[in-house]
Amino acid sequence: MGLARTMDRNEDGIATATAILKQRFGERLSVSQSVREQHGHTTTWIANQPPDAVVFAHSADEIVDIVKICAEHKVPIIPFGTGTSLEGHVNAPAGGVSIDVSAMNKVLQVNAQDLDCVVQPGVTRKQLNEFLRETGLFFPIDPGADASLGGMAATRASGTNAVRYGTMKDNVLNLTVVMPDGRIVRTASRAKKTAAGYDLTRLMIGSEGTLGVITELTLRLQGIPEAISAAVCSFESVDDACNAVMATIQYGIPVARIELLDELQMKASNAYSKLDYDEKPTLFLEFHGSAASVAEQTEAFGEIAAEFGGGTFRWTTREEERLNLWQARHDAYWSVVALRPGARALATDVCVPISRLAECVGETQADIAEFGLVAPIVGHVGDGNFHVSVLVDMDNGNEIAAAEKLVARLNARAISMDGTCTGEHGVGQGKIAYLPSEMGAGVDIMRAIKQAIDPDNIMNPGKILGYNKQADMV
Amino acid sequence: MGLARTMDRNEDGIATATAILKQRFGERLSVSQSVREQHGHTTTWIANQPPDAVVFAHSADEIVDIVKICAEHKVPIIPFGTGTSLEGHVNAPAGGVSIDVSAMNKVLQVNAQDLDCVVQPGVTRKQLNEFLRETGLFFPIDPGADASLGGMAATRASGTNAVRYGTMKDNVLNLTVVMPDGRIVRTASRAKKTAAGYDLTRLMIGSEGTLGVITELTLRLQGIPEAISAAVCSFESVDDACNAVMATIQYGIPVARIELLDELQMKASNAYSKLDYDEKPTLFLEFHGSAASVAEQTEAFGEIAAEFGGGTFRWTTREEERLNLWQARHDAYWSVVALRPGARALATDVCVPISRLAECVGETQADIAEFGLVAPIVGHVGDGNFHVSVLVDMDNGNEIAAAEKLVARLNARAISMDGTCTGEHGVGQGKIAYLPSEMGAGVDIMRAIKQAIDPDNIMNPGKILGYNKQADMV
Repeated sequence: MGLARTMDRNEDGIATATAILKQRFGERLSVSQSVREQHGHTTTWIANQPPDAVVFAHSADEIVDIVKICAEHKVPIIPFGTGTSLEGHVNAPAGGVSIDVSAMNKVLQVNAQDLDCVVQPGVTRKQLNEFLRETGLFFPIDPGADASLGGMAATRASGTNAVRYGTMKDNVLNLTVVMPDGRIVRTASRAKKTAAGYDLTRLMIGSEGTLGVITELTLRLQGIPEAISAAVCSFESVDDACNAVMATIQYGIPVARIELLDELQMKASNAYSKLDYDEKPTLFLEFHGSAASVAEQTEAFGEIAAEFGGGTFRWTTREEERLNLWQARHDAYWSVVALRPGARALATDVCVPISRLAECVGETQADIAEFGLVAPIVGHVGDGNFHVSVLVDMDNGNEIAAAEKLVARLNARAISMDGTCTGEHGVGQGKIAYLPSEMGAGVDIMRAIKQAIDPDNIMNPGKILGYNKQADMV
Repeated sequence: MGLARTMDRNEDGIATATAILKQRFGERLSVSQSVREQHGHTTTWIANQPPDAVVFAHSADEIVDIVKICAEHKVPIIPFGTGTSLEGHVNAPAGGVSIDVSAMNKVLQVNAQDLDCVVQPGVTRKQLNEFLRETGLFFPIDPGADASLGGMAATRASGTNAVRYGTMKDNVLNLTVVMPDGRIVRTASRAKKTAAGYDLTRLMIGSEGTLGVITELTLRLQGIPEAISAAVCSFESVDDACNAVMATIQYGIPVARIELLDELQMKASNAYSKLDYDEKPTLFLEFHGSAASVAEQTEAFGEIAAEFGGGTFRWTTREEERLNLWQARHDAYWSVVALRPGARALATDVCVPISRLAECVGETQADIAEFGLVAPIVGHVGDGNFHVSVLVDMDNGNEIAAAEKLVARLNARAISMDGTCTGEHGVGQGKIAYLPSEMGAGVDIMRAIKQAIDPDNIMNPGKILGYNKQADMV
């Protein structure tokens, strides 16, 4: 399998820092193989690169201490939430200390009047929404996994609701961050808008732990809509489905979700969830608003779907039926895994201008056929963002090589269409090699920022920038 | 009047670079006093600090040349759009070369299917919307002035529509920027979402020309709503008005605009625009959507207003009546100027969590009374953002001092309420002194970024960070 090259290790520093941290944290520092491997999790073809130690932090003050100790001995730090990132973000190519913040899971404030809340970084999105249920508010960002909010900010996470509610960049008001020298920085305030200097909030969002450790987040909240309607409609081709999506967005229908599942994904879903949907490209939609507005939106979409040859158009506003209707989408990941038992699903994503979406999906399906791979496609198509899950037998070198080629072609295609090699999964290790062709001299600017803020390169080294040449994984 | 201290000037460098530029640009380089003063425009109490020369650029390539010449001779560069910024952003405390991009005013692409467009930096917001009219699309960000889009991105501009459509940070997909060393960087792509490394787009937005010169922008567009309704309602107190705002936002009514005008502002508006509104705190609203949705929103707001003792509730969906109804708001700036002929209106803004808004406005009104100043208040209250326009006799040192004290207190109050000393006007020169108390160590991070990207401090020096101690203006 594709090997992850390692970076230079600072053996002495790691030994010293680990010993000091052991004294300070006792049983809350683990060097057990299984704990370390669980913290070097990756869903790419890159090998697991466990950290040397994992510290389970309980407070920002503790994180300051850990960072200062690691900084003094120039030891890598890898912030860790739930470990559900997809591109090797939590791998430790130069070893070092994983700071696990999952125990920092308190909701500190809910300011209902301001539609915001303050949380610790280990709070997960589902936990937060459970906590908020009584208030009539919710937090809309929903990557597939029940990720930690700190990790979601660090990776600029997104998901099915982004077409309506934006991504993490749009839903974080303020972050508290421990910087590489142990200083604590608040990136903004609780104000809804600010023009007070450089946008440190957005700089930290998506920095993947390479600039600091997030210890607190102020998040925007939304009112739970009065009414929600769900709809499903199949199309004869990906083209027709994408044209319906474009018309929906252009017509100004404020869809909350609009998801595309391709033929293979529908086949996988029917098999896994015992459904009887047409095995054709299918759109799953959700509309939020008042009862009247939701009815109006649903009807308007129905007309658009018909215009583009949409088949049976099923919809409902009743909660249980909604969940049933969307079951294929909710179970998509598991249905993919079940499609080829024993294989691993390597997830990749790109994002293109919506006008190029049909073309990008179509050419990618042709590539998949050419390489003889099994790889369903699911997309947050309202944003032009889609995922390919390549089912790979990890003992078969040829298959891994073919998957790598597929991903390389997909990235090049998205970039050539004025899109990006990652719409929401991030760079981590897996997309380092593609960033220069997308960002050009922008990579040098990122590098200059990284160098200025973290001159010793201790914060999650080997991510995004492949700072050390040897970290270049592809 | 409050004097602007100057920074050290690089006389030799300025003379040399100006001579080279003169040869290269001929009549498109101006050293006339009036042109220079027009390019050192400020609306604060800070004196005009004209650049040494103004170059009227026609292309990104020309800007690269100018930047390279200035970089070689370490000469300050001040990017200039329409010069409508409010906090001394275009002043030249260390002299140097103003790059006027107003002639770079072409709309390069309108991608209707993708709801985006590509423009040169000198295109103004009104020009763009005029251009877009036939397409059914519009660009929603509307600071008071008809500002250039490059300047609006550089200052993270905002306005009355922000409560619904966000600020410049939410409506720019991609920027092309000439960096301080003359390299051209594209910050992103035309994809709606990206997770490809650090968010250089948001870093540039709000950097006020201190990191580079914007030469091209890709902007998100919105569909012109099918229906628009406008409404006006007065309240017995600022408290009642603010409570109605909070309820409106919490109830999830997707107001497109919700503006507060205080008693004095209503008095000024009645006098200037010959209207007969109650001289009480008044909310001006706009609702966007389908005809049914707009009717529903208007009705829902009417009920909330009644709950908080709202007076006559006037509303309409007809365009001409809408404009009439909103006339007081549209003419607010001019009505303020007319309130005290001969005085200058010094505009300042803060932004606080909406739950603190009534308190913040109320205490500020008390300060205004205490200082014996004339200063109406207008607010984009859906975001907790409001403006105080202090009418000052610029020949009266005591009045200027009182205005400075008022602003200092207002900033401290907003910061103490977990808000910001500027919601949309930016830091420029006017708010440099307040940034450390708001951002703490965050200012050091900004400084490190500035140093890394612009080590010779040639890009708009003396702004945001007061990089040179002597640039500290307050």
